[in-house]
Amino acid sequence: MPEALSDATLARLFREARTHNAIGGEVDEATLRTLYDLVKFGPTEANSCPGRFVFVRSAEAKAKLAPALSEGNRDKTLAAPVTVIIGHDLAFYDKLPVLFPHTDARSWFADSDEARLERVGLRGSSMQAAYLILAARSLGLDTGPMSGFDNDKVDAAFFAGTSVRSNILVNLGRGDASVLYPRSPRLSFDEAARIE
Amino acid sequence: MPEALSDATLARLFREARTHNAIGGEVDEATLRTLYDLVKFGPTEANSCPGRFVFVRSAEAKAKLAPALSEGNRDKTLAAPVTVIIGHDLAFYDKLPVLFPHTDARSWFADSDEARLERVGLRGSSMQAAYLILAARSLGLDTGPMSGFDNDKVDAAFFAGTSVRSNILVNLGRGDASVLYPRSPRLSFDEAARIE
Repeated sequence: MPEALSDATLARLFREARTHNAIGGEVDEATLRTLYDLVKFGPTEANSCPGRFVFVRSAEAKAKLAPALSEGNRDKTLAAPVTVIIGHDLAFYDKLPVLFPHTDARSWFADSDEARLERVGLRGSSMQAAYLILAARSLGLDTGPMSGFDNDKVDAAFFAGTSVRSNILVNLGRGDASVLYPRSPRLSFDEAARIE
Repeated sequence: MPEALSDATLARLFREARTHNAIGGEVDEATLRTLYDLVKFGPTEANSCPGRFVFVRSAEAKAKLAPALSEGNRDKTLAAPVTVIIGHDLAFYDKLPVLFPHTDARSWFADSDEARLERVGLRGSSMQAAYLILAARSLGLDTGPMSGFDNDKVDAAFFAGTSVRSNILVNLGRGDASVLYPRSPRLSFDEAARIE
C-alpha cells in the first residue's frame, strides 16, 4: 500500500485548510479547466456525474448572482475573482448511456419521481462540491463554500428552462488569512463515530 | 499562492484513483482514527458536521450489515476489511451551540420540518463521504463507495432509536487493481460546465 501523503500536504488539504471569507487574487480560465478535470474523476452513484458548474467571473454574471445572495454573503462573493455555482441536473440519467455504458443504467432512474431524482442529484452534486473544494486546495486555491442564498433566484437567473437545480456556491481565489476567525470546533471521534 | 500539488499526488487523489470492487488487506483502529481526524475538518453548512460514521469491521457487525446489501454489493463488502456506514443525524442542530458558538445557529434549524433537515443532513453527509474518500486515498487506502443498499434495513440494524439516517457505504482497504474494469467516461468541461 502506498504511504500516506506528507504532513504538509495533509495540512494543506485538511488539517490547516480554512473556509475563507476575504478572497481576492485572480483565477484564469486554464486553472478552471484544470480544476474541472480533477473534479470530474471523483466517484458518484452509477457514475451519474449529476453536478453542473457555472464559473461566475464577469461583472455581468456577478450582477445576475447578487440578488440571490444572503446579505452576509453578498459583498465577499462579489469581491471574489470567481464564484462557482454547483447544481445538479435532475435529468442526469440521460447521460448514463455514455457514462455507464455496460448496462442500461438509464432505466434505473428515468421513471423515478422528482423526489428520488432530487435525492440522487443532491447527493452527487454535494460530493462533487466537496471534490471541488479539495481539488481547488490541491491547485493552491482557497475556497469559501456557502449555502446561504436563494436557490430559486439562482435557478431563474442561471438555469431557466433547464432541469438543473442549484445546490452550493463556492468562492475561489486567494484567501486573506489575516482576517480569519479562529477555527470552530469539530466533533471528536467518539461523538461522531464508532467501530463495530 | 502555493503551487499545485505534484502530478503524482493529483494522480493518486483524482486522475488515476479508482473505485475498487475487490478490496482486501487490513486497516487498524489507529488508521480509522487518523482518517476521521482528517475528515472532520472538511467544511459543512454552518459547521453543522451532520455526518455520523460506523466503521463495520467485526464478523458480527458484517453479519448485521449483510441483509441490507444489494446482491451485487454483498460479497465484495463482506470481503473488505472495513465498511464505513456514513449517515447524518437529523438532530445535527443540537451540536451547533458547540460547533458554531458565536451565534445561536441552533435556532436556524431546530424548528425546521424533516424535509429540510433531511436535505441539510444529506448534503452535509454526502460532502463528508467525499472528504472520507479523498482522505482515505491520502492515507494510502483504496475505497469502494456504494449507494446500492436498503437504507431502512441499515438504519434498523445500526441506528435504531436514534435520529441518524444512512446515506452511503464505503469499503476501505487495499484494492486489487488487476481486476478493475477500464475507467468509465466522464463529461467534458463543455458538457458539465461553463464560464460566465
